[in-house]
Amino acid sequence: MELREIGEFGLIVRIQKRLAALPPAVIKGIGDDAAVTSLSPGTYLVSTVDLLVEGVHFNLSLTSAHLLGRKSLAVNLSDMAAMGAKPCFALISLAIPAQTSVEFIDDFISGFIEMAGAHCVSLIGGDTSASPDKLFVNITLLGEGKKGELVFRSGAQPGDRLYVTGTLGDSLLGLHVAQKREGKPASPDEAYLLERHLNPTPRVREGRALAEKGLARAMIDVSDGLFSDLTHICEESRVGATVLVERIPLSAPFQSVASPPGGQGWQAAIKGGEDYELLFSAAPEKEAEVRELARGWECGLACIGKIEPQSQGIIIRDENGPVDPRLLKGYDHFA
Amino acid sequence: MELREIGEFGLIVRIQKRLAALPPAVIKGIGDDAAVTSLSPGTYLVSTVDLLVEGVHFNLSLTSAHLLGRKSLAVNLSDMAAMGAKPCFALISLAIPAQTSVEFIDDFISGFIEMAGAHCVSLIGGDTSASPDKLFVNITLLGEGKKGELVFRSGAQPGDRLYVTGTLGDSLLGLHVAQKREGKPASPDEAYLLERHLNPTPRVREGRALAEKGLARAMIDVSDGLFSDLTHICEESRVGATVLVERIPLSAPFQSVASPPGGQGWQAAIKGGEDYELLFSAAPEKEAEVRELARGWECGLACIGKIEPQSQGIIIRDENGPVDPRLLKGYDHFA
Repeated sequence: MELREIGEFGLIVRIQKRLAALPPAVIKGIGDDAAVTSLSPGTYLVSTVDLLVEGVHFNLSLTSAHLLGRKSLAVNLSDMAAMGAKPCFALISLAIPAQTSVEFIDDFISGFIEMAGAHCVSLIGGDTSASPDKLFVNITLLGEGKKGELVFRSGAQPGDRLYVTGTLGDSLLGLHVAQKREGKPASPDEAYLLERHLNPTPRVREGRALAEKGLARAMIDVSDGLFSDLTHICEESRVGATVLVERIPLSAPFQSVASPPGGQGWQAAIKGGEDYELLFSAAPEKEAEVRELARGWECGLACIGKIEPQSQGIIIRDENGPVDPRLLKGYDHFA
Repeated sequence: MELREIGEFGLIVRIQKRLAALPPAVIKGIGDDAAVTSLSPGTYLVSTVDLLVEGVHFNLSLTSAHLLGRKSLAVNLSDMAAMGAKPCFALISLAIPAQTSVEFIDDFISGFIEMAGAHCVSLIGGDTSASPDKLFVNITLLGEGKKGELVFRSGAQPGDRLYVTGTLGDSLLGLHVAQKREGKPASPDEAYLLERHLNPTPRVREGRALAEKGLARAMIDVSDGLFSDLTHICEESRVGATVLVERIPLSAPFQSVASPPGGQGWQAAIKGGEDYELLFSAAPEKEAEVRELARGWECGLACIGKIEPQSQGIIIRDENGPVDPRLLKGYDHFA
């Protein structure tokens, strides 16, 4: 069935019907000029927005509508996680080419709602439009965080330890798998990497735990690549940093696919974006507490270096010494 | 200068530099994983989002970047006005074709910030992306409203008077001027209509005043067309309505361009979308109070009919009796 058969309001009603009962904090969800929600007094409203564009962020021949729905919320949840905030409400904007099937949108919404349900997020509104050509997905995510608990990019101090959750570079290799094999992985390792690219796990629980316990002094999610995102922390905090290449956590599939002995596979782990892991700094005296907290995390945690004075800049060091930073830059949409 | 010369972060810094000092309620604006804002306790957070797509909502050969910036926020402000809420914070998502000039984006942002400043709205975040082809603008607007003051679509009751601010149909005729004359109006009347289409005025002050005084029982902004938007109120409130065609407020330029004596120009005032006027119902005993309040409004106010029992449905009546509703439907993106 094509979208033109049900029309814009048909689409909205279809989305509305998919939603479970809304929590009391949703005063008015979909179906008015605006959504009305109530946040607890004494907390901050945290709002983030992420735009996913067909042909730029995703390729419909390489992913499914369901996974795209999951990922479009996951990337916003990852931003929320990087603040240590609790995600609450989402708004979806979709610009949809006329030939798109209703089934595609249904699958997209079902993936979105699955991811939302896993994090107690309510879909409260949005907008839909025809698109001349490509699919555009824009998600706004609203959350809350207690004053004094939220973690900014600007709090890192020289001497802090630098940590990262999970493993890096999997998503970039997964993208390569998608592109080279047209989404059909040739081995379990490739399947793992592809899954990491198409269906990332936002570290919401980990980010909130770090914030609640006051352990992270600066935090960001690794969406543009380790080097780029570390640069954001260093600029906002007016510090430098040293990262030791051998400490960067790499998954076994990453190592088997990208890192033959003596190879430069680790560069993919530094440049690669879309890992949606958390990169944060913590005071050196909190090291034991950080490790204790992370013991319960399935994704794991690695200390990859430390924060330095600003005058040092950012140094990525392998066994031969500092690496040329021009090799390590992430993705720029317009460059 | 093309965008590729300054890159994504260059663009963000450029936008940041345009912003005036942020109010204390903005804990963290542009430049972290998410924006952090504080709303007064005891109020509701009101959030709305509107998507504008090149080739669907606007044509870059017929408007300017500055006017597009103004309008992209205005349409969201109009939604906020229709809730009776106070707009506070905005997030912008832009998907930008590679060949777009930096000057275009600067002009867009300058129009946006001009409109934001007029309504004390702070730009606190957003996202940017390349676009394969068309420009996409997605604005999220967050506002607040006191419990008990916000006005929904669902509060209309039979017997209520039905009012509309300003005049209707100007925007649709302005669109025709833009299309027929390639944006070069042939008379002052056409120039007026074109301005109403390209640079609409959201009725924020009027919407808030109605809400604060508890005068509006149901309210919506006329974005899809009077008939469509009245249908939303009637469905949500489970009521019917009667509208008298001779009461529909028409501007002098509209009448001179669209309504030769004996013509059917009024149909454009009922079908035409994008007027961004407020349509609301109020209890009959509040009529004097409504008229007193509206005396201070430059845009004016007209009583165009009344709310009826649901069984009656919606009747639009001209001097010959009820009009066939199939003539009156508004715009559906996918139909």
